[in-house]
Amino acid sequence: MLTAEGCKARRQRFLERLKPSHLVVLADSLHLRYFANFYVDGISSSADFGALLVIREDGHATLYHDSKLPKGVEFAQVDERKPLAWYSGQEPELAPRRLVLKPVLDANGGRIHDSIADPLGATIIGITTELRRRKDPDEVALLKTCMKACDAGHTWGRANIRPGMTELEVYSGVANAVFAALGHWAVVYGDFTISVGGKKRGGPPTPHKLEAGELFILDYSVIVQGYRSDFTNTICVGGKPTADQQKLMDLSLSAIAAGAKHLKAGVSCQEVYDTMRNVFAGAGMADYFTTHGGHGLGISHPEPPYIVRHSSETLVAGDVVTLEPGLYVDGVGGLRIEHNYLVTEIGSEQLSNHTIALV
Amino acid sequence: MLTAEGCKARRQRFLERLKPSHLVVLADSLHLRYFANFYVDGISSSADFGALLVIREDGHATLYHDSKLPKGVEFAQVDERKPLAWYSGQEPELAPRRLVLKPVLDANGGRIHDSIADPLGATIIGITTELRRRKDPDEVALLKTCMKACDAGHTWGRANIRPGMTELEVYSGVANAVFAALGHWAVVYGDFTISVGGKKRGGPPTPHKLEAGELFILDYSVIVQGYRSDFTNTICVGGKPTADQQKLMDLSLSAIAAGAKHLKAGVSCQEVYDTMRNVFAGAGMADYFTTHGGHGLGISHPEPPYIVRHSSETLVAGDVVTLEPGLYVDGVGGLRIEHNYLVTEIGSEQLSNHTIALV
Repeated sequence: MLTAEGCKARRQRFLERLKPSHLVVLADSLHLRYFANFYVDGISSSADFGALLVIREDGHATLYHDSKLPKGVEFAQVDERKPLAWYSGQEPELAPRRLVLKPVLDANGGRIHDSIADPLGATIIGITTELRRRKDPDEVALLKTCMKACDAGHTWGRANIRPGMTELEVYSGVANAVFAALGHWAVVYGDFTISVGGKKRGGPPTPHKLEAGELFILDYSVIVQGYRSDFTNTICVGGKPTADQQKLMDLSLSAIAAGAKHLKAGVSCQEVYDTMRNVFAGAGMADYFTTHGGHGLGISHPEPPYIVRHSSETLVAGDVVTLEPGLYVDGVGGLRIEHNYLVTEIGSEQLSNHTIALV
Repeated sequence: MLTAEGCKARRQRFLERLKPSHLVVLADSLHLRYFANFYVDGISSSADFGALLVIREDGHATLYHDSKLPKGVEFAQVDERKPLAWYSGQEPELAPRRLVLKPVLDANGGRIHDSIADPLGATIIGITTELRRRKDPDEVALLKTCMKACDAGHTWGRANIRPGMTELEVYSGVANAVFAALGHWAVVYGDFTISVGGKKRGGPPTPHKLEAGELFILDYSVIVQGYRSDFTNTICVGGKPTADQQKLMDLSLSAIAAGAKHLKAGVSCQEVYDTMRNVFAGAGMADYFTTHGGHGLGISHPEPPYIVRHSSETLVAGDVVTLEPGLYVDGVGGLRIEHNYLVTEIGSEQLSNHTIALV
């Protein structure tokens, strides 16, 4: 969980950059997560509802939200948290649920400063986009919670994916393994589908029944308090990959290992991308590497920096990034693998620990 | 799916009530769903991102959203849909994702009229809250899609809930049955937990292993394009309810049947509530009926009208409501049952078709 100290430090850093002459009201779900550990579970009746975070110039932070949100919002890290009643269960609603925060807003200047409709909106979003790259220790700890649960889902996938299962059944099995590892439910989303090559490189699960020889791309995220993992294995359904399929895997393993060696603060994303692409080029396969090579990861997906064909960004200490090389060859299949890393001053720490293998 | 005609009629009704002298920009997720069939899947990387719906005075509607949203947004029902690029996968992002809609907003007056920070916000939310009660035929059709999938999950629950399973495993099994019925994944949320009486009447699934004799409250919603079902059965784990547990079920079945007979446009919610409560009172059990008796249902949960102890609303044709009587007795267990209904001029249509039974 994000810590009180971490949230306070992020708010302080934000105020130092913004230098506001008045209190600031934030409502963007990403900002409430980052500055206050406030997250409304996506699998709840409250997924459409949020809060207002009022930060005074002196740093004092108050969170206002309606009183029917899931219990997870009690983990918010602020100086004061004020739930507001709109429905008791014994009388009709006091006001439309969306309006319960309006008096609070009106009492605090009436502006939502991080809205794109506010004069300050673009400035604030620009600042937070930049700040978010350097993950704090509490953010990394929370990401590791996501990674560990994601590892458990991959273990289930390797043990259980077989001919005759539907993609939807794989999703349910993976999600169940994730829940067991976490001890609670969570949003699990991503690619849970077979890939026959360049035409389909991912997508949500379908009722398709898996057939022996198909390549199943298991590329998914686990969200805890709004932070997320994102890593991949590709499994050969039935466990008997062809030599051509194995070649895709071997090359991708070489590419990701080569790319990971270059991860370090100060290194250009172009260098990391090119390193991976060059592995494929050495085998005459670069044209089949059609997806991005990686991206930043945290409270949104994808987010900077981008490890892409035409990169312009440079890694900083605290970046959490994915590397996800893959090859998509019609007639052979599509394959992608992926690990997540914390970039440091001296290199990187691999955060995902799943087994990457076709079988 | 909501129809083009339905969305257009709702937009027209809205304009007739609001009578704006300028175009209207809407961004509230509930409004985009209701007026444009625009829904971003909660289990996707885009769950934090939305769109802008620009409605001109002449009714012409244009939807702007970023181009990385899930495919479901292609079902939007508007005159024009304009995806905006912010990330190609080959270059870094053109702008922070949250800012991709800002130029559109600026070109359309710079205001988000349904925000609580806008002078029109409260008026618009008031109007839509009222309009939303009278569901159109396309809304009812979509709700029936949710109900049918929810029925399938209940069938799975009755067949499979047994001692030794964890509540989380029940959740995964129910969700998997829902996905199979729908042919795709969806948000499934609600109460998946045992109730020992008044102390806990619901909640998300936990790692608790079910034990024979416990009462499992299966009360959940299935969301499709933002619309949702919400109905309940209570199952006696192990299949051997005590006489006291069976009494809770028999009384609740009598209460829901009695309440349902009163559902009709023009009837007060107080009458419906009192009818249910009187069944419990006749058995000296009214004090154990501590939850609300029901509520409206559609794109939010709960929503008006409220069938509660101190009601003030009157049913209208087009209301979709739940009735959910229950009794929570320490030492016996907590039990709740629930059906969903469409209120009509002559009575009601029951929309849920699951079996309600302890065994």
